[in-house]
Amino acid sequence: MSGSASPAPDGWYVGIDIGGTNLVVGLVPENGGEPQGLRIRATAPQRGADAIVSDIARMARESVRQVLGAGYHDAVLGVGVGSPGPVDRASGVVVESPNLGWVDYPLQERIQELLDWPVVLDNDANCAAFGEWWVGAGRGTRSMIGVIIGTGIGGGIILDGELVHGSSDAAGELGHTTVDMTGRRCACGNYGCLEAYASGPNIAARAREGLEAGIPSTLTELVDGDLSLITAETVYEAVVGGDRYASEVMTETARILGTGIASTINVLNPEAVVIMGGVTRAGPVLFDPLRVEIRRRAFKVAAEACRILPAALPETAGVVGAAGVGRAVLRSRA
Amino acid sequence: MSGSASPAPDGWYVGIDIGGTNLVVGLVPENGGEPQGLRIRATAPQRGADAIVSDIARMARESVRQVLGAGYHDAVLGVGVGSPGPVDRASGVVVESPNLGWVDYPLQERIQELLDWPVVLDNDANCAAFGEWWVGAGRGTRSMIGVIIGTGIGGGIILDGELVHGSSDAAGELGHTTVDMTGRRCACGNYGCLEAYASGPNIAARAREGLEAGIPSTLTELVDGDLSLITAETVYEAVVGGDRYASEVMTETARILGTGIASTINVLNPEAVVIMGGVTRAGPVLFDPLRVEIRRRAFKVAAEACRILPAALPETAGVVGAAGVGRAVLRSRA
Repeated sequence: MSGSASPAPDGWYVGIDIGGTNLVVGLVPENGGEPQGLRIRATAPQRGADAIVSDIARMARESVRQVLGAGYHDAVLGVGVGSPGPVDRASGVVVESPNLGWVDYPLQERIQELLDWPVVLDNDANCAAFGEWWVGAGRGTRSMIGVIIGTGIGGGIILDGELVHGSSDAAGELGHTTVDMTGRRCACGNYGCLEAYASGPNIAARAREGLEAGIPSTLTELVDGDLSLITAETVYEAVVGGDRYASEVMTETARILGTGIASTINVLNPEAVVIMGGVTRAGPVLFDPLRVEIRRRAFKVAAEACRILPAALPETAGVVGAAGVGRAVLRSRA
Repeated sequence: MSGSASPAPDGWYVGIDIGGTNLVVGLVPENGGEPQGLRIRATAPQRGADAIVSDIARMARESVRQVLGAGYHDAVLGVGVGSPGPVDRASGVVVESPNLGWVDYPLQERIQELLDWPVVLDNDANCAAFGEWWVGAGRGTRSMIGVIIGTGIGGGIILDGELVHGSSDAAGELGHTTVDMTGRRCACGNYGCLEAYASGPNIAARAREGLEAGIPSTLTELVDGDLSLITAETVYEAVVGGDRYASEVMTETARILGTGIASTINVLNPEAVVIMGGVTRAGPVLFDPLRVEIRRRAFKVAAEACRILPAALPETAGVVGAAGVGRAVLRSRA
């Protein structure tokens, strides 16, 4: 596992990260490292799946040509793809992706039809967590949990250097651990899930509730009085600007996150938890109370064994991890 | 993995289960099965650790002699020991066991001094869960979670046929997942842990609270009006006798257990969850609402993949699992 300072590797893996907003493609050296020849473009899901797949294949070929030149085709050992929503890894099918409008879409097969290298599919959160473990903040650990805070809260679990997929590829749904059994309704139908409090949209919703009750804050000015415009980004911006109420909202978010993460630490006793997503921009306003809450709630021996870290690859963990997952699966088949 | 109907195996493992109340020792065939030559006696922790260790060694020798006869000493391949409290597996030390009064006690070394076979130490909850996976209710699955409900709530996690120990042998503390972040104080210092509601003593405490508020129930008669005498056993007894309030207490217990277990199912997506301990005697009054709550709270794909089962080896899972853990560790070293 060496970075870009290492000698040129013999082999490379293409990483493909399919997001609701962007498609990101790059080439990752087989021993790990930052992706090279990065290609980024808008997903524009309304175009339909086949147009997206054509784009992905073209971006992959462009990336390989840029990094390796036309003659190095054989140095590419495989392709890893991270896709949102539950996937069936054995068949390479995306079971359901509301953001992309896909149901039972045979993504792996479609990409395979357009590329000569072997293609491996996994869930995007698993890939992002694996990227942070392989090359990013979790590098060097044997066990790591990635918590990805965005529109929802996802996660990926690495134990003994391998992703935990579970019996039906559904493991890692850290956002749907209950922190308050009679609490807020979650989009999943359950009550009191971590995600119902600490996802981006729910951080914004909780901030709006206080403002509607009359708490003074620069948040109101940041959106010119239209509270419906407040997003999690607005809250982070106000925190960075020193706003007291926004900081309180982030502290409460940190405590709730800490509750859910402490439960997972008590169950899995990992070496590191890596926090990923825009929320990390809140910096110490997030991480200080988060670490306190985890120390307060988790068993001492488990809390002491576990570092709580911000992501190291905020833009590229998905691409790096997809390549890493492709590498792991293809090596296990060899 | 064959039962007692199989031909006599070539090798055997001694299983030793050290509980706060009883010491249980038996001989388990190397391919799995019910323990033979069982020895049971009171732990009586006040005697001190060395007296307990002498007893254990004597019971192990007696068990081997009974099952194999004097000439078969070499058919014993190793010894597995399950001990309460956190253990350090690498050094074979019991870090702390409040029930036994042990702190940093070198249990593996002490037993090893008295027996000729190689000795392996693990936590008792891990051993009990492993026993149910190897020979009991979880047999045939690749991933299983054991939830052990007694004085506290412990657990053991088996993924891909191996126990998850975590980075400092502290994994599996399922009783200390938070189900209500502002809830009841737990003995661990945290608030709203699963254990604070659903351990034996806390089931009894919750039952007493309703009786003190005047709810009519045969529970009061079962203890001749002295509510301080109510234990979880009394509650199970009243449930079996058809008492309505006791059944309500068990239903609520099942819902809270289901909340905590659903979180773990969302995170690990196991094939089975096995419920162990006296609470299983409540039967359908526990398991029906438990299964409903899990279906209500866990993701559909994860809930459908997971069977919720009562323990199959209520008396011997600890011995079987200790032998199985010994076998797994000693085989990995070979």
